[in-house]
Amino acid sequence: MTTINTDTRLCGVIGNPVAHSLSPLMHNSAFEAIGANYVYLAFRVEDVAGCLAGMRAIPSFRGLSVTIPHKLAVMAHLDVIEPMAQHIGSVNTVVHEENRLVGFSTDGPGALQAMKETGVETAGEHVALLGTGGAVRAVAFAMAEMGRAASVTILGRTSAKVDALVQDIRAKTSADVRGGSLETDREAALQQCAIIIQGTPVGMEPDVEASIVPSDLLRPEHVVFDMVYRPHWTRLLRDAHAKGCRLVFGIDMLVYQAVLQFERWTGFEAPADVMRKNAYEALGCEAP
Amino acid sequence: MTTINTDTRLCGVIGNPVAHSLSPLMHNSAFEAIGANYVYLAFRVEDVAGCLAGMRAIPSFRGLSVTIPHKLAVMAHLDVIEPMAQHIGSVNTVVHEENRLVGFSTDGPGALQAMKETGVETAGEHVALLGTGGAVRAVAFAMAEMGRAASVTILGRTSAKVDALVQDIRAKTSADVRGGSLETDREAALQQCAIIIQGTPVGMEPDVEASIVPSDLLRPEHVVFDMVYRPHWTRLLRDAHAKGCRLVFGIDMLVYQAVLQFERWTGFEAPADVMRKNAYEALGCEAP
Repeated sequence: MTTINTDTRLCGVIGNPVAHSLSPLMHNSAFEAIGANYVYLAFRVEDVAGCLAGMRAIPSFRGLSVTIPHKLAVMAHLDVIEPMAQHIGSVNTVVHEENRLVGFSTDGPGALQAMKETGVETAGEHVALLGTGGAVRAVAFAMAEMGRAASVTILGRTSAKVDALVQDIRAKTSADVRGGSLETDREAALQQCAIIIQGTPVGMEPDVEASIVPSDLLRPEHVVFDMVYRPHWTRLLRDAHAKGCRLVFGIDMLVYQAVLQFERWTGFEAPADVMRKNAYEALGCEAP
Repeated sequence: MTTINTDTRLCGVIGNPVAHSLSPLMHNSAFEAIGANYVYLAFRVEDVAGCLAGMRAIPSFRGLSVTIPHKLAVMAHLDVIEPMAQHIGSVNTVVHEENRLVGFSTDGPGALQAMKETGVETAGEHVALLGTGGAVRAVAFAMAEMGRAASVTILGRTSAKVDALVQDIRAKTSADVRGGSLETDREAALQQCAIIIQGTPVGMEPDVEASIVPSDLLRPEHVVFDMVYRPHWTRLLRDAHAKGCRLVFGIDMLVYQAVLQFERWTGFEAPADVMRKNAYEALGCEAP
């Protein structure tokens, strides 16, 4: 740990709960690795307004990660919200610049970066997103605005939720976005898509044998990205590995959303390898 | 530095400026020495209300040191103010207990502790205090309420200020408090007093050859305590040392006010020797 002095700046995560957050580990190890004079703490917070007032009052309180359940509530207390975060309707990162609080989202860009680091390019590809929750929403907008996919197909259980998300992305971007049912459209959609991004809770601990994609729909040409990272090796990723698919692990989305936060707060290139190594060790992840 | 994790609690100092504060050094070295999971940062703050709202919103934001110019302003944002701090009219310490912010003052008790650690007992002694500023006010109330001095004589340049402080202490305590002029009453008062506590800015850098007590008024029986700690060896303390007086250094008041803060925030006995050693080293202090 860099020695704290009167110049040390503060970053932190607000959420509830935050007891299992990997962010303090990732960010503090990164600060230390490059000798940046910052500390990063976890703040279990209910009163978002009060917390943001405190950040505003403390010029050296430089950055916040924002997690559940505050990603929407925090937006009311910021001076500037970057366009993609406005489109998504959630903020996972705040940076305290001079006298203003700026909000943005690194969840979607972090997912794109995790794919890129794994050697997966989304440009020109047909992408299937499974789920309609906040993380899928963030990745869908990032894909539509930055990923240059040929098409994005959103598959969900509830057609009203799928339709709402598809309409919203169509209204705000020029991407080719399609919707479908996880039951009736899954097989056809997965046949047409090269990249499958799993964003439902299916497969999370403790239900580690569940998978939303039957193994027989997977082909070796698929890239399979599971946002679930507890466990690291979900049933879906084990099935995909057995089929010879290229894999993207959920933990890497977590790592790269943090990498992008770090770079925005410090202005330095993040030591992504250090952050990734620490996250992998903390979760006891094994490489393929 | 103890490794930061999701249980790490935050303390800090608010003031303006804070760039030269020794508090981060003292508190962080003490946290590390006893393995307490806290970090302590320096916050240059103008908006006290916002800062305290932030502290209130963050349960793990455990403690604040409060320094110039916020010791009075902070009081409006607390739930409980301990009696001595109420009497003094200033707070230098805030502890976040459950859902309330409690303010108190360790400036006066820290001065008493610094004397005690130097082997000086105030009980039954006649004490002279030179000056009428905030630090003298804090020490005067501590002396009146905790120090059990036989009498406390306050000497100042401006009789209205001396009279106001004397009347205020008389109204709130049962101590024998007297006032006098630094010009006309100094010699008689110092002859009657065993303990001289210097609380004016005289002798501070850069005017290091100035002293408010002519050398010929010092006797070997005097205890001489100079609140000025830059330089460590003020002209007054050098003169007193030459006369064979027992000395109390200003830096020790700073150390022991921090020791008392530390114990209130953590509930642990402070490693006072570690805090003192670090403060002495940082200021380049030499022992007598």
